[in-house]
Amino acid sequence: MTRKTKNILFIMCDQLRWDYLSCYGHPRLMTPHIDALAARGVRFARAYVQSPVCGASRMSFYTGRYPQSHGSTWNGVPLKVGELTLGDYLRPLGVRAALVGKTHMRADREGMQRLGIDANSLIGVRVSECGFDPFERDDGLHAEGPEGSYDPVAPRYNRYLRDKGYKGRNPWHDWANAGAGEGGGLASGWAMRHADRPARVREEDSETAYMTRRAIEFMDAAGEQAWCLHLSYIKPHWPYIAPAPYHSMYTAGDVCPVVRSEEERKDPHPIYAEFMNLRASRAFSRPEVRAKVVPVYMGLIRQVDDQLGKLFAFMQDRGLFETTMIVFTSDHGDYLGDHWLGEKDLFHEPSVKIPLIIFDPASAADRARGSVCHELVEAIDLIPTFLEVLGGDPQQHSHRLEGRSLLPFLYAEPAPTPWRRYAISECDYSQLPVAEKLCVAPRDARLYMVADPRFKYVHAIGFRPMLYDLASDPNELRDLGADPAHAGERDRLLAALHQWALRSSQRTTRSEDAIRAERGRAQRRGILIGVWEESELPEELWSGYRGEEN
Amino acid sequence: MTRKTKNILFIMCDQLRWDYLSCYGHPRLMTPHIDALAARGVRFARAYVQSPVCGASRMSFYTGRYPQSHGSTWNGVPLKVGELTLGDYLRPLGVRAALVGKTHMRADREGMQRLGIDANSLIGVRVSECGFDPFERDDGLHAEGPEGSYDPVAPRYNRYLRDKGYKGRNPWHDWANAGAGEGGGLASGWAMRHADRPARVREEDSETAYMTRRAIEFMDAAGEQAWCLHLSYIKPHWPYIAPAPYHSMYTAGDVCPVVRSEEERKDPHPIYAEFMNLRASRAFSRPEVRAKVVPVYMGLIRQVDDQLGKLFAFMQDRGLFETTMIVFTSDHGDYLGDHWLGEKDLFHEPSVKIPLIIFDPASAADRARGSVCHELVEAIDLIPTFLEVLGGDPQQHSHRLEGRSLLPFLYAEPAPTPWRRYAISECDYSQLPVAEKLCVAPRDARLYMVADPRFKYVHAIGFRPMLYDLASDPNELRDLGADPAHAGERDRLLAALHQWALRSSQRTTRSEDAIRAERGRAQRRGILIGVWEESELPEELWSGYRGEEN
Repeated sequence: MTRKTKNILFIMCDQLRWDYLSCYGHPRLMTPHIDALAARGVRFARAYVQSPVCGASRMSFYTGRYPQSHGSTWNGVPLKVGELTLGDYLRPLGVRAALVGKTHMRADREGMQRLGIDANSLIGVRVSECGFDPFERDDGLHAEGPEGSYDPVAPRYNRYLRDKGYKGRNPWHDWANAGAGEGGGLASGWAMRHADRPARVREEDSETAYMTRRAIEFMDAAGEQAWCLHLSYIKPHWPYIAPAPYHSMYTAGDVCPVVRSEEERKDPHPIYAEFMNLRASRAFSRPEVRAKVVPVYMGLIRQVDDQLGKLFAFMQDRGLFETTMIVFTSDHGDYLGDHWLGEKDLFHEPSVKIPLIIFDPASAADRARGSVCHELVEAIDLIPTFLEVLGGDPQQHSHRLEGRSLLPFLYAEPAPTPWRRYAISECDYSQLPVAEKLCVAPRDARLYMVADPRFKYVHAIGFRPMLYDLASDPNELRDLGADPAHAGERDRLLAALHQWALRSSQRTTRSEDAIRAERGRAQRRGILIGVWEESELPEELWSGYRGEEN
Repeated sequence: MTRKTKNILFIMCDQLRWDYLSCYGHPRLMTPHIDALAARGVRFARAYVQSPVCGASRMSFYTGRYPQSHGSTWNGVPLKVGELTLGDYLRPLGVRAALVGKTHMRADREGMQRLGIDANSLIGVRVSECGFDPFERDDGLHAEGPEGSYDPVAPRYNRYLRDKGYKGRNPWHDWANAGAGEGGGLASGWAMRHADRPARVREEDSETAYMTRRAIEFMDAAGEQAWCLHLSYIKPHWPYIAPAPYHSMYTAGDVCPVVRSEEERKDPHPIYAEFMNLRASRAFSRPEVRAKVVPVYMGLIRQVDDQLGKLFAFMQDRGLFETTMIVFTSDHGDYLGDHWLGEKDLFHEPSVKIPLIIFDPASAADRARGSVCHELVEAIDLIPTFLEVLGGDPQQHSHRLEGRSLLPFLYAEPAPTPWRRYAISECDYSQLPVAEKLCVAPRDARLYMVADPRFKYVHAIGFRPMLYDLASDPNELRDLGADPAHAGERDRLLAALHQWALRSSQRTTRSEDAIRAERGRAQRRGILIGVWEESELPEELWSGYRGEEN
């Protein structure tokens, strides 16, 4: 019997580095369930996000468009009310798009108000939720400070915790993201010195376990309609703190050596220099921070893998592995001190490259199982892939969708030639102290990465570029951005960027096919341009112009 | 007493060449009322449209953005539902935005339906009408052919004509755009051989006279609220046919010599060659066509001027010249056979340059009256100008509006340095036979003009560029696009285009000021990144993390 794909399980971790999975080569962190998925599917070795920061990257995943196209270039910049999202593409195919977890999407309230869209209507909710029908939305950052809450939406998870007996106004912080402090107080996970303490929450009530159960509940209740479930974990994103036993599963001895060199700090690119000067960068440059935090980061990943084991077992039981494409990926990486940096934002591999594993149950995918794809792949390729696997035609949406279906790789078919020669990623640093320090106006605080199979070029508005040769310097320790010997490579990659920048990305209201169909149509509707005498055109075109009253 | 501007009268002609007004130097076509406006205001000598075709050009006028930004790159390509338009900018200032005449805007019905916007609601009407409250919308092309009507909206003007006794299903065509034919039949204005016949309609019932009266009726009924009235004439756009006495006011002897050379037809740029091969180009390359059509084109312009005389007299009577900024411009030009071309679309001056005259009644403008501005000015500069003159702050909208206020020129103040060094215009030829003939995919059928004070460069995706030196060749008869001696100029102008293409145009949901204000705000809402120990941050930032239940 030929197996056909009906559902999609689109799993995303937050801030998971590409190389912190055993199937991607981590020597100490074992992730057997994710590895098993890779063994049954295709593992992409060079998958890049469109922006190494949560919000902008996710808006590219969910719209299938570059940040320069969708405009939500940084966390909290609302996604324009007119942008189409995953759900808009899948619903016409009869597929329900549902969310469990994080999107980091800020709704365009101003635009909604201008257009009279009620936030509580079905349309309003979808516009506010990235096109998903929220089964359990939780952006996972329920931080609070003197100016109020970071996320205006109180999570259902807090209610869950309180029902379970976890006390306090914000059990998300006090139990799931804090350990026990001295003298009966809290050891907040926001202070990384506490990273090795167990979170106060029981493992089964922690965020990763809770969200996994919610995904199971969704599938359990889903019925016959096809679905695309976005299971979007907040972890291993900070606060770096894990419930027992994951808090102590790994030790400093399990941590891979830091990737950096003294050379990087000698006369660095001015933007890179300012990023090295950020608090997280300074912290992760200290050995004791890495020694305490990275093992917990690993524990959080291991917990995700264990939970996926449970989810996959449930799916196996229900026969869902026969009908469900499973995608496992991340929204960006984490420097963890590599290159003297913490966090993400810039374009070294630990930040911009992501794990991407796709399992397709279809018989057509059997030949490709366990294979590794080394082509340049982008986050925006997922929507076209989903569309194609569910019977849609990504080409019909090529006036909006900027990525390409990965199905040829999943079916071990020859890639459409030519496949992408450059991967593009963007960084809008206008809200970071970096822009202030360098006196860069918000509109100019932008970086663009152009990666080809060998080189990685970074265009910086108003500054010299950066350049890395991944062949001779796979760890990206030597910036060749000012090296006279590499002027040719820089010119070539800048030209590729310019070609990309001039692409047609906003003519989104008329498809390529519709444009072809429009040719000559005005004439058949009576617009007769440049005609000297009637005989130049077929008689029928004059039918409306004979005058009736005569 | 200091005069202050309260209203705006924004007059647009359709397809009016920059040089077909006596104040712009036409030797035979006298336009005294427009000239008088120029004498009281500022005349812009180098104003460019953002695309030399009705729809795309107008969407740039009405959104203040380049076609590459708003996406409505050709006639009939719907303007995305989320794009803000003139009315959206003016209403918050208490100014009513009203329309009499043409916008050539196609509403984004698909987007409206997706977002649940009722086309008949107030918001729905504005979204469908380019942000205007239509007092009299009439796109002026009520063509009909075997596949139906070009414009789905039946014009009120047809009802008016019928009420006046003009018979037939489509009196717009049968009376206003046709002459009397042989044997009692019609001589349709769509066949240019009839251009010299008088339209069957009486002059006072012709489109230009009718629309002028509608503008007067609007002003008469406007009351105290400030307004911006867009009076948008269809003429002198084709069908080239004029009511008496304008049909015979000028003769072939009044027509300026055609501007073209045999050299242009020797080995032309392949895209230019295909444009020369279009029907309108072939027609206007024939002397008899120019001899018959251009005098009528002149007559139609003269009629506009006469009608403006009536409108201005009314305004003078009502004291509106004390309170109303008056803008006179066009959406693009008309080749009329120059360069072996008809119609518009390409970037020679007859097509891409427009007349632009601005009269500002404010006392501050007294010093500049009668002056001529030679700076590079773009259609997208109007909204910022309107905003500033009405007391708004264009800078607050600089994340959306891509033009710049012209007020410094109106007030004879030093231009903000540096003023624009390049004017940009675009042509999407994907719906023209040109694209088919050249086998260019719809997404690649694009041209970009970069004009600086001396050179005009045209970037053609997939082809060599074109280049004109306006200093040594003001008539643009020599294409230097392949001339080795001009490689440096081409590189310089291409670099300017690339810089433009990389601009930030889609981050439209957060202003530059809001971005600055967001800096550090996440931290004050509890997001504490990269902290090792609590003492690194002010105590208050930890206030939410002490644990209440303890």
